[in-house]
Amino acid sequence: MSGPVSATAPLDGLTVLEVSSFVAAPLGGLTLAQLGADVIRIDPVGGGADLRRWPLAPSGTSLYWTGLNKGKRSVTLNFRDPEGRRLLGDLLAASGPDGGVVLTNAAGQEWLGYSSLARVRPDLIHLQIQGHRDGRAAVDYTVNAATGFPLITGPEGLEDPVNHVLPAWDVACGLYAAVGLLAAERRRARTGVGSEITLALADVALAVAGHLGFLAEAQVTGADRPRIGNHLYGGLARDFVTADGERVMVVALTRRHFADLGAATGRAGRFAELERLLGADFGDDGDRYRHREVITALLEPWFAERTVGEIERDLAGTSVLWSRYRSFTDLVQDGTLARNPLLHPITQPGVGPLLAPGSPLAIDAAPGPGPAPVLGADTAAVLTGLLGLSAADVAALASRGIVGVPDP
Amino acid sequence: MSGPVSATAPLDGLTVLEVSSFVAAPLGGLTLAQLGADVIRIDPVGGGADLRRWPLAPSGTSLYWTGLNKGKRSVTLNFRDPEGRRLLGDLLAASGPDGGVVLTNAAGQEWLGYSSLARVRPDLIHLQIQGHRDGRAAVDYTVNAATGFPLITGPEGLEDPVNHVLPAWDVACGLYAAVGLLAAERRRARTGVGSEITLALADVALAVAGHLGFLAEAQVTGADRPRIGNHLYGGLARDFVTADGERVMVVALTRRHFADLGAATGRAGRFAELERLLGADFGDDGDRYRHREVITALLEPWFAERTVGEIERDLAGTSVLWSRYRSFTDLVQDGTLARNPLLHPITQPGVGPLLAPGSPLAIDAAPGPGPAPVLGADTAAVLTGLLGLSAADVAALASRGIVGVPDP
Repeated sequence: MSGPVSATAPLDGLTVLEVSSFVAAPLGGLTLAQLGADVIRIDPVGGGADLRRWPLAPSGTSLYWTGLNKGKRSVTLNFRDPEGRRLLGDLLAASGPDGGVVLTNAAGQEWLGYSSLARVRPDLIHLQIQGHRDGRAAVDYTVNAATGFPLITGPEGLEDPVNHVLPAWDVACGLYAAVGLLAAERRRARTGVGSEITLALADVALAVAGHLGFLAEAQVTGADRPRIGNHLYGGLARDFVTADGERVMVVALTRRHFADLGAATGRAGRFAELERLLGADFGDDGDRYRHREVITALLEPWFAERTVGEIERDLAGTSVLWSRYRSFTDLVQDGTLARNPLLHPITQPGVGPLLAPGSPLAIDAAPGPGPAPVLGADTAAVLTGLLGLSAADVAALASRGIVGVPDP
Repeated sequence: MSGPVSATAPLDGLTVLEVSSFVAAPLGGLTLAQLGADVIRIDPVGGGADLRRWPLAPSGTSLYWTGLNKGKRSVTLNFRDPEGRRLLGDLLAASGPDGGVVLTNAAGQEWLGYSSLARVRPDLIHLQIQGHRDGRAAVDYTVNAATGFPLITGPEGLEDPVNHVLPAWDVACGLYAAVGLLAAERRRARTGVGSEITLALADVALAVAGHLGFLAEAQVTGADRPRIGNHLYGGLARDFVTADGERVMVVALTRRHFADLGAATGRAGRFAELERLLGADFGDDGDRYRHREVITALLEPWFAERTVGEIERDLAGTSVLWSRYRSFTDLVQDGTLARNPLLHPITQPGVGPLLAPGSPLAIDAAPGPGPAPVLGADTAAVLTGLLGLSAADVAALASRGIVGVPDP
């Protein structure tokens, strides 16, 4: 980068209180933390429903929880006790001019809603993640089932739905939450006015399906797109088996990609003959797609006769987009993680040394990834720092079960 | 909502020049436009490689392009001509104190890079989306192949990779781009310093895989997670066939969910016997997951004997999370789109009347969804408004092919 160098992280000074669980809200907070915000995750004493979620390290520490809470501070409060709930309001009031921001997916808690918390912080920015817009519960797996994609995913001819393994709606929802908080904070900095924001997971899925044209397609054509396996709808892309038993994904999105693919595989002449025969133009998206089966049948032997190394050599210097299919352990073993400056070594309590990702946004002065906190590790520091409590005050609250601190 | 009402949209005044194609960069710009930013998409005269991408309306208008460019303005410039490139710099310089923001995924264009454009706008915020961090090209489908998920998606026993149909990495990348621009603009408003930001699609996938624990799991266990069909890893969730031939997805994420599922299906007693027999606690995530086959086998007949309507009746009032699988046309036909205030009627040139989604962020004063512009529709207005050119100046530029305007 040749760009400017700032002494301050992009989100320097921003303080966010996150009362969250599972993926979406924690990912929203993580996204802000990795750009320099002070994100304080506040859990019930003993932890939330996601504290032990799989995958687990041999110690029982959740690799899921620690992955989603890197670089945050952890405070635990007894939400069942009025004194614990009041402490949340006190923290909000004390969180400074760049604070007053709450991110939550907790449902049905009146004391945690906008109206209650705006009393202690009139310029409150409050973002509530929920399942449906009307407040009904939903999670990624039910939203995904309700949104069309599982019925057009997977091998041609299959009748069953195929669920995604990546919780894509949770991921998009968490990132939308980060966008919403930053947009609202921008407005507050200019006008002094806070925001009450709701973000429904089901709306995230519908919005994205709409933005990508799936909903318009169903409205305009009245028909559902067919299941086409690993082909790319409206283009040319598919997986191929190689001579060494690997799989590669190959993509030709443009006229140039397709010309390069034909030239590199020695198929240009046969493709031209086929175009004449079919009255087609394979430079056109639609014609590449309509004739995908015959085009890919002509390509199959080329890939089947070559190892991945030979394919790499023969496609080098062309515009053809391709990649070997890799497993997560491949990424560890082939050095992908170690080579990429996105990943930094951290030592995660309960897990040990790990390579962990920072923000994919490469921007100056963003902090690298820190480990996730031990549950309640920052209760004392946050109550002391923001509320001015003494160590003895915190110890007294902990002994009464109003706040939690880690086991010594 | 009981919250504050602001007269200004969250991103009022923010002006973004977007030189983009396909999904990620356009979605980033769309996300900002739907919160009130003035997003000016600048294409080459005649349009970019994505202008005709499928799905298409009967007129040939792309439902994909129009879906991703809703509510933006469209300017076309001849980037091959120095005068067209200079106009981009002029627009950037003239884009006001809240402008000076460029979002692009165009590759290898020196004149479009941070260093060139910062000459005309020293406080430039420039976000470059690229395939890999080192500049190599990649697209969603190749990144997905390289990132582990296709090998653990789909029916148990299948050996082939299963690609996603939702371009989840493009979606996440576009949302990260919106976050990055807002974070950088926050810093600029406070310090006056701009930002050079790069965002690699491959890094987005690795970061998300890391945040969700997949990379830590591979590092800690050295083994890949098995392919488990539509089961949920580390929990209890699966699809079931109903008496009316539908499919439903059912999720029990917590102890309470599972207890409610047992009670509602009359299986509580059998589950308790099974727990004793197996020495298991189905309230525990791990035990629900380990014994998923026998638990779901006990549940199958209950769903197979009931229609979706009966299931809805019997699960009402419980905490059990479930949904019917629906196709995109189901969403149109069952009124889901018409009922949800996320979607608004628009009239899209080249398509006609449609229900289109606004931002899933429900925040006061965000604009509803506008239609996408016709290519080049705003060339004259933007050149006149920002650069002070006369209508005759624009017509002269258009006649020389330096700028594009729509066909009359």
